[in-house]
Amino acid sequence: MMDEIFEQPRALERTFRAEREHAADFRRLSRHRNFRLIVLVARGTSDNAATFGRYLLEIATGIPVSLAAPSVHTLYHARLDFRQALVVGISQSGEGTDINMVLRSARRRGAYTLAITNEARSTMASLADDVFLVRAGRQRSVAATKTYTGQLMVLYLLTAALGSHVTLESISEIPGRAKQALRLEEELRELVERYRYMRVCTVVARGINYANAFELALKLMETCYVVAERFSSADFRHGPIALIERDFPVILLMPPGRTFRALARLAERLDELRAETLVFSSEGARLPRATRSVRVPGEIPEIYSPIPYIIPGQLFAAFLAEVKGLDPDKPRSLHIVTRTV
Amino acid sequence: MMDEIFEQPRALERTFRAEREHAADFRRLSRHRNFRLIVLVARGTSDNAATFGRYLLEIATGIPVSLAAPSVHTLYHARLDFRQALVVGISQSGEGTDINMVLRSARRRGAYTLAITNEARSTMASLADDVFLVRAGRQRSVAATKTYTGQLMVLYLLTAALGSHVTLESISEIPGRAKQALRLEEELRELVERYRYMRVCTVVARGINYANAFELALKLMETCYVVAERFSSADFRHGPIALIERDFPVILLMPPGRTFRALARLAERLDELRAETLVFSSEGARLPRATRSVRVPGEIPEIYSPIPYIIPGQLFAAFLAEVKGLDPDKPRSLHIVTRTV
Repeated sequence: MMDEIFEQPRALERTFRAEREHAADFRRLSRHRNFRLIVLVARGTSDNAATFGRYLLEIATGIPVSLAAPSVHTLYHARLDFRQALVVGISQSGEGTDINMVLRSARRRGAYTLAITNEARSTMASLADDVFLVRAGRQRSVAATKTYTGQLMVLYLLTAALGSHVTLESISEIPGRAKQALRLEEELRELVERYRYMRVCTVVARGINYANAFELALKLMETCYVVAERFSSADFRHGPIALIERDFPVILLMPPGRTFRALARLAERLDELRAETLVFSSEGARLPRATRSVRVPGEIPEIYSPIPYIIPGQLFAAFLAEVKGLDPDKPRSLHIVTRTV
Repeated sequence: MMDEIFEQPRALERTFRAEREHAADFRRLSRHRNFRLIVLVARGTSDNAATFGRYLLEIATGIPVSLAAPSVHTLYHARLDFRQALVVGISQSGEGTDINMVLRSARRRGAYTLAITNEARSTMASLADDVFLVRAGRQRSVAATKTYTGQLMVLYLLTAALGSHVTLESISEIPGRAKQALRLEEELRELVERYRYMRVCTVVARGINYANAFELALKLMETCYVVAERFSSADFRHGPIALIERDFPVILLMPPGRTFRALARLAERLDELRAETLVFSSEGARLPRATRSVRVPGEIPEIYSPIPYIIPGQLFAAFLAEVKGLDPDKPRSLHIVTRTV
């Protein structure tokens, strides 16, 4: 897991270079197709990438996005009207049985289908109309890291193809920002000691980083066996905040930008409740009082923050697993490819 | 909370009778409008109702459904193409600031807007093109129960209006099924003693009952301060199952039907891991080995199971709060109306 975390800047660069032309081609195709709906289909870590894609695509292209509920197709055999729909399957291995069933069914129902996968020779790559390949190299760790950020990279490229808010030039800066974020290694290695006995926690983020709350929580569940809740700051106030008492650990991902204010207000409320807060923000940001904070290096426009912001989270989970005496590469009960229907 | 749980059969009957004609009118309107996308907008318990609606509407009408991400509209001011879209706001009070902002924005972008609310004189009711009223009577408890099932009832009526799989005749049987489910009162009152010291748990369901996993978990968080995870049985296998060790409590909602087999297999796996399982199923079902099981009375077609299946969950949460010495009507840090943007 640790190796793969550090491979990310190069994997991102490789994916960007290999697929940037493809994005230009896809722009031409999409003009012709006139997509009016985008449906994203995924499970596990890839589903967290899909959640990111949902925000990015809606914000930057104006096309409504739906995250597919696979069982609607695989168990209930619904016949959805997918004319003018772009249906995107996301899977590291390309072998998720249910995801592939949804793609096949969507194609029959009129959708144009796209696969985002790390495996060029996978079932998913062969059945979709088009494939964007994540060039992360073989994933060896059960806990996905470089394939998650690789999927995010491809979703940036897809968004650039479908709209005008996200540019190839800005995307090209992401690998460098990822490298900067890795500089937090030593700081995080020391920080995790404090959380040696943490058994439950909540991760809170919003908007474009909401998916990262899910992804960090999933890493904490898989590799550290921490029962990790995850919420948007708004949903959190609609009920789950009742959980919070003195000492309850809450991790907040709050880059400067549109979501900062809501999260800063929540951090203040958590301080009143005497919760333990760990804030991930940027170097320059003026933060509310927090128990601990981690500053991601560089000035990052919010829309490009998700990759540099998940990297310290990945390091946090990997180091925490170590201090808990666990092997983050071999979570109990899990395998790299999970087949569900 | 307890009073409101027991008011449900009558509130459901009232809502059904008052809105059944409306469903017929809406059928005519929808033919004319030719909706190609349904977007559901909600927070908190109403968002769980929306998740239910998402499955029911896609399964029974074939129209793709998206659960809105409010911040896309309220913070990022995205301009989504909502022509031929039906945008449905769901809010008990009708005063959720962000939900109303999304409805206003959707209307400007071409959507036909519908409000599902308990309050006829609310902001939401006044700004939407049409209103389906939940007739649950004033909600006094902070933990929503009768308004949740009332929202589900309206979503059944809306589905009957938009498709042919759900019929008014079958919907008319729901209040009676709700009444039958309340017969579990004494059994559940005794059962909760076992969970007096439960601090964390996971609720698992799938398909049409997936939303109930979220709703039961939310009740446990709000009223019992139990850190309650919630997953589909498929997502659970893609990572979070690593959390499970001896004694970890997992609640499974598994009515007979399309989702039963996947949940039964998961229950067997959990038994191997020596987890503690609590299964909610139906009288006639042949269950896998479970630590405890609760049998919902009657033979219920799966598609109509969500209301009778959440009721024992509501009772479970309310009784558990009592044995933990908590007041389920006054969760700390919460109010009935939560305003977020």
